[in-house]
Amino acid sequence: MGTVIASGSMSLDGYVALDDNTVGPLFDWYEAGTVEWANHGDVPPFHLTTESAKYLEWTRHVGAVVAGRNTFDFTDGWNGTHPFGCPVVIATHEAPTGWDHPGSENFSFVTDGIEAVIARAREVAGNKDIAVTAGEVATQAVRAGLIDEIRVDLVPVLLGRGRPFFTTDPSNALLLQDPIEAITAKRVVHLRFAIQR
Amino acid sequence: MGTVIASGSMSLDGYVALDDNTVGPLFDWYEAGTVEWANHGDVPPFHLTTESAKYLEWTRHVGAVVAGRNTFDFTDGWNGTHPFGCPVVIATHEAPTGWDHPGSENFSFVTDGIEAVIARAREVAGNKDIAVTAGEVATQAVRAGLIDEIRVDLVPVLLGRGRPFFTTDPSNALLLQDPIEAITAKRVVHLRFAIQR
Repeated sequence: MGTVIASGSMSLDGYVALDDNTVGPLFDWYEAGTVEWANHGDVPPFHLTTESAKYLEWTRHVGAVVAGRNTFDFTDGWNGTHPFGCPVVIATHEAPTGWDHPGSENFSFVTDGIEAVIARAREVAGNKDIAVTAGEVATQAVRAGLIDEIRVDLVPVLLGRGRPFFTTDPSNALLLQDPIEAITAKRVVHLRFAIQR
Repeated sequence: MGTVIASGSMSLDGYVALDDNTVGPLFDWYEAGTVEWANHGDVPPFHLTTESAKYLEWTRHVGAVVAGRNTFDFTDGWNGTHPFGCPVVIATHEAPTGWDHPGSENFSFVTDGIEAVIARAREVAGNKDIAVTAGEVATQAVRAGLIDEIRVDLVPVLLGRGRPFFTTDPSNALLLQDPIEAITAKRVVHLRFAIQR
């Protein structure tokens, strides 16, 4: 069974996007080097540092991406093809109507809670890993005990405000395991933590 | 002239304390090893891992600590002696009255803004470095261009709510320089960033 990984680029003050969903300098590390990194669909190739290219290999083992409705709407579902080139599961209150792109058959819309979202992602991922997009959905999944690992691409910028990687939750603190690795590269530190089990 | 360093232990979701100023597991790395680390005043020795002890050497070069009134009140001014054993400058709207401990003569209370706070810290620190405590005061100092370096001891825990290292600021994003180092140790990743100049 694949590993369920919550992941995203996060500013040092904890945000994965500005309020308008733009990312400011959070993705600068995608263009910080010369290693060409092909993406599927409409997203042009990245140009990574050697360190970031090696780190990003984990995404080659992803068999399903989970994201929230906000991300889906902002990207218009990546016009039907996620950059990872794999099926996508969207957590939403209501499936969109009339959304039709080549590849849209690879999208699932799950309306009955985070457990069902991750269960659906497991179905489509098979034995491959699952990448859960940072933000509300990732936080819900972490809090529900559905995430195995957190990968944070920590970017040296203070955004000052925006959409947090981890939304607030007054219930209790959640201990993670000791850091597995921290890789410094140009415009980013790649951090990896396992969840306490 | 010394380096001005904003520093603190921060949860992966960005908090340096809970709302009641307690720190939960944020200081677990102080007791994660066997290297005894002496503190001044009332704070008992830490027991650090080898990695954290080496990292923490920077605090030996600190000649003044800057903190906010909230920290001062919560610790009762460390009963007059900061664990670093150096003078302390408190940013406050009003100096306390009747606060008297052995060592209280090493405390300054500055009421006329963050520039004056850091200027006073430079006076008392001489050529040594200045440590600015994470939170509102550190954020003000960063935003005012008064900080040279940020050191974050990033702790693998999600607190869910609390007092942030970096308070919100809608004005603009602030780019930091590339990460200088990231050291993984038990219960912490020590991160170091310089400010863009």
